[in-house]
Amino acid sequence: MYRSNTCGELRASHIGSEVILSGWVHKLRDKGFVAWVDLRDRYGITQLVFDEERTSKELLEQARELGRETVIQAKGQIIERASKNPNIPTGEIEVLVTELTILNTSLLPPFTIEDDTDGGEDIRMKYRYLDIRRNPVKNNLIFRHKVSMEVRKYLSDQGFIDVETPYLIKSTPEGARDFLVPSRMNEGQFYALPQSPQTFKQLLMVGGMDKYFQIVKCFRDEDLRADRQPEFTQIDCEMAFVEQEDILNTFEGLTKHLLKEIKGVDIQEFPRMTYDDAMHLYGNDKPDIRFGMQFGELNAVAQHKDFNVFNSAELVVGIAVPGASEYTRKEIDALIDWVKRPQVGAKGMVYVKCNEDGSYKSSVDKFYDQDDLAKWAEVTGANPGDLICVLSGDANVTRTQLSALRMELATRLGLRKPNEFAPLWVVDFPLLELDEETGTYHAMHHPFTSPKPGQLELLETNPGAVKANAYDLVLNGNEIGGGSIRIHDKETQATMFKHLGFTPEEAKAQFGFLMDAFQYGAPPHGGIAFGLDRLVSILGGQETIRDFIAFPKNNSGRDVMIDAPAKIDEAQLKELHIKLDL
Amino acid sequence: MYRSNTCGELRASHIGSEVILSGWVHKLRDKGFVAWVDLRDRYGITQLVFDEERTSKELLEQARELGRETVIQAKGQIIERASKNPNIPTGEIEVLVTELTILNTSLLPPFTIEDDTDGGEDIRMKYRYLDIRRNPVKNNLIFRHKVSMEVRKYLSDQGFIDVETPYLIKSTPEGARDFLVPSRMNEGQFYALPQSPQTFKQLLMVGGMDKYFQIVKCFRDEDLRADRQPEFTQIDCEMAFVEQEDILNTFEGLTKHLLKEIKGVDIQEFPRMTYDDAMHLYGNDKPDIRFGMQFGELNAVAQHKDFNVFNSAELVVGIAVPGASEYTRKEIDALIDWVKRPQVGAKGMVYVKCNEDGSYKSSVDKFYDQDDLAKWAEVTGANPGDLICVLSGDANVTRTQLSALRMELATRLGLRKPNEFAPLWVVDFPLLELDEETGTYHAMHHPFTSPKPGQLELLETNPGAVKANAYDLVLNGNEIGGGSIRIHDKETQATMFKHLGFTPEEAKAQFGFLMDAFQYGAPPHGGIAFGLDRLVSILGGQETIRDFIAFPKNNSGRDVMIDAPAKIDEAQLKELHIKLDL
Repeated sequence: MYRSNTCGELRASHIGSEVILSGWVHKLRDKGFVAWVDLRDRYGITQLVFDEERTSKELLEQARELGRETVIQAKGQIIERASKNPNIPTGEIEVLVTELTILNTSLLPPFTIEDDTDGGEDIRMKYRYLDIRRNPVKNNLIFRHKVSMEVRKYLSDQGFIDVETPYLIKSTPEGARDFLVPSRMNEGQFYALPQSPQTFKQLLMVGGMDKYFQIVKCFRDEDLRADRQPEFTQIDCEMAFVEQEDILNTFEGLTKHLLKEIKGVDIQEFPRMTYDDAMHLYGNDKPDIRFGMQFGELNAVAQHKDFNVFNSAELVVGIAVPGASEYTRKEIDALIDWVKRPQVGAKGMVYVKCNEDGSYKSSVDKFYDQDDLAKWAEVTGANPGDLICVLSGDANVTRTQLSALRMELATRLGLRKPNEFAPLWVVDFPLLELDEETGTYHAMHHPFTSPKPGQLELLETNPGAVKANAYDLVLNGNEIGGGSIRIHDKETQATMFKHLGFTPEEAKAQFGFLMDAFQYGAPPHGGIAFGLDRLVSILGGQETIRDFIAFPKNNSGRDVMIDAPAKIDEAQLKELHIKLDL
Repeated sequence: MYRSNTCGELRASHIGSEVILSGWVHKLRDKGFVAWVDLRDRYGITQLVFDEERTSKELLEQARELGRETVIQAKGQIIERASKNPNIPTGEIEVLVTELTILNTSLLPPFTIEDDTDGGEDIRMKYRYLDIRRNPVKNNLIFRHKVSMEVRKYLSDQGFIDVETPYLIKSTPEGARDFLVPSRMNEGQFYALPQSPQTFKQLLMVGGMDKYFQIVKCFRDEDLRADRQPEFTQIDCEMAFVEQEDILNTFEGLTKHLLKEIKGVDIQEFPRMTYDDAMHLYGNDKPDIRFGMQFGELNAVAQHKDFNVFNSAELVVGIAVPGASEYTRKEIDALIDWVKRPQVGAKGMVYVKCNEDGSYKSSVDKFYDQDDLAKWAEVTGANPGDLICVLSGDANVTRTQLSALRMELATRLGLRKPNEFAPLWVVDFPLLELDEETGTYHAMHHPFTSPKPGQLELLETNPGAVKANAYDLVLNGNEIGGGSIRIHDKETQATMFKHLGFTPEEAKAQFGFLMDAFQYGAPPHGGIAFGLDRLVSILGGQETIRDFIAFPKNNSGRDVMIDAPAKIDEAQLKELHIKLDL
């Protein structure tokens, strides 16, 4: 037996007991005649004490030699601490050691195993197993476990069945890029790793499973943007005999449950907003509504004067930044520089200071009088003390730019509070999205999403106007879930594939099994998928998903700890009937 | 709203209520003036009634046209059935339909959606989504869900943390064959899919995670034997600061919990048996101990006469088949033919009938007298009325043959009762296994298994004799779990790799990260993994794991429903820097 107790559980009530503890030497304080060791395991830290009087001299000498991260087993008696530490749960006691065994030695770790480590990202990833010993990473992983357990418990209690779907499936190359797996037994053929279990969960609905969920790894071979992973985890769900309202209610229930159980936050009803409103009010289909600064469209009150920049713009739009009228010229110039950065791309920014005395001072006073500016304040909802920031130009582009500015300012103003939670349903997404480069439409959600009732015909005449039974759940400015009511009849599905540029042969080759299935009594169905990595990071009040993944990959898709991917023996490739083509 | 209730929940207490149900037309009984429809969903069947008097004529006509598996929505009033059906929970009521909506049509399914279907395995796999509508398959999947949930609940309650490990890892080709995934971003390099998360769970222990579990897909590119799948699911577990005893107790607890919660079976302590005893007593390292028929080794009492077949054999060994002394000559000849089949491969079989009067009649009466045979009966534990079956030859081969005969006879005698559960720990496995073909040793469990204390030196002199801290959990003659205490220091691990034929360079290239990790304070640790597919099928009292997998692959590793694997576009291969080599 390596231990009778963990390092996190001993209290004053245990004083007098004999215990055996095992763990890592976290810290050693050596006063010569007495030494204290902080012994650490997953559960906490317990202080071990060795001294000349009460323990043997040999034991004290042995303790004084202990290096950081040495793995030891200590036997001893729990005694009351002379100087108590109210900051840790075990702070009232210490263990007077009578036996000490070194279970394993340790080299000096390449970074300190402390909450605030001296190790940079790269070295921590290479030695991730040491990084995981640190409280912040360890606690994130335990937090993720708790969220997963609560998700499973809630959905199972609601009658959802966890069904495992296959990982070795078929490539459907029209969407994101698939990871491929050459088949040894089927020469010249390949499996693909699933981008999601989409078609399988739909087949489960055709199969009468009624309510399905799975927490499942998905794979996308994309060029990795910051904080994307080639493998990621989805809470994948599907229900039969449902309308959009049923899905929204069910998964609003799940999200409320998580917020309540995990964060102790009670939220009543989640607000809902159409995609069009989200774009108009926030320039963004995943608005952060923890704070205001809604967009005010100023065309009507800004295009009647001689200011040509505005007059020639498709859209003039502004936001009122609370309490920012006192920004100095220098601060405002910095803001203008910020929107002109290539990442944002605005040509400039007009501003209006709403002074406390009710007057206005703007960068376009030459064109607009106080009455004009008062109207701008009205439209943007600006109060005395606020700063109105106005951008103009092509409507879509300008909205995106102003959205970026809104988020930046909110961050600077401390309005994006990590422990405040503002969920929002965004509904009525467009069915199709125009690819500006190719001029063709592709599915905004995926090809299985059903258009709104009665809008199928619009596909022929005005495809961009067709709305879908598609919805996203947004939390604090992040899309944490998205889904749709699916097509469940073969004809509509075939029509969709046609409009997405599939030939009938391509549609049959890739999705024939699904369209076949639809002919055998497919029920109406729909679902949703949550990004678990993102969800836990937001619930955890943090930004980067990597901190909530035990063994993440870097931006080149590499695992730097195990050094993968790697070169392969010729013999292995031969067996798989492939060769390199470099 | 598609439904107010499911088809499984309405009872006599609901009589008088208005309901809306949705589901599939399971059966139609049409008497002309009245028609009944069995409406089916996941939850059950509810009878709908249409008749001339109480429903409109149009509705009755519409109902009479309903084909099997049509998806309908029916609104109506719950009434008491004239003739009740005590065999189904909804048998006291029926729904008098006032509105009928056809939600989707169905072609005639290629097999009947009944518990006993007329569809063969191949057609059912191709249309798996229809197969899943059948109770046996549907219930198996729900059963699997329940087992998974209980496993997670139990382990989580015991302090285990569910940590997701990566799927895109590095190939380690010395064991089973890996599935490979070419990397687009890292030209000429490949990921591998994990055969198990073994090294990652060990790194989690180095990382102080203390108790880890995960229900996780694993992948092995093997030529598929019957009832093996290229992707399979493991309950993967690891603990730090444990000895073998701790692991056995913890997972005996899990297994007891499952037997109790899922099957209502209380089992006290699981028996334990060494590998050597299992081989001697049952000829098998996963003995089915639901029944006796232990081996009796007869060399001492059978090699003193002139029967050369026995005298020249390394081993003479028999079993007593209960109540089989009445087998006819024909039955015994059939048994002899059975052991001579190439799959078993015995040269012949000697038998002794233990007559009810205490006398013996054997096929070797010419060599052995009644006293000899009485000794055989004593050694094999045969009672009057039993039949002793004796095989002889090379010890290992003969044990395997007699084990096969023992299992076959138990099946014939009905001793392998699917709802009786006999768990057994088999311990003290050999560390290494001799590959008869190559004459080299390989790891019986895996290269990370630790030898028994003090046996490391034996590796040099008698590698086959080294025992490991390795254990299997056997249930009803199936290995459902296996694990070991791991090596946790770099030197021992390096020694192991050397003995397994790795050069130091190969060991470093493939497992350098693990040996590095062992230098930074790796704790003693060990674990176990259960095959979930097998576990649920045994708990479910069935034989084939395929029946408990939603979308299984066939023996060529193909998913015949989606038709995967499949050919891939040249462009996709090009991007991955590979080409076909056929």
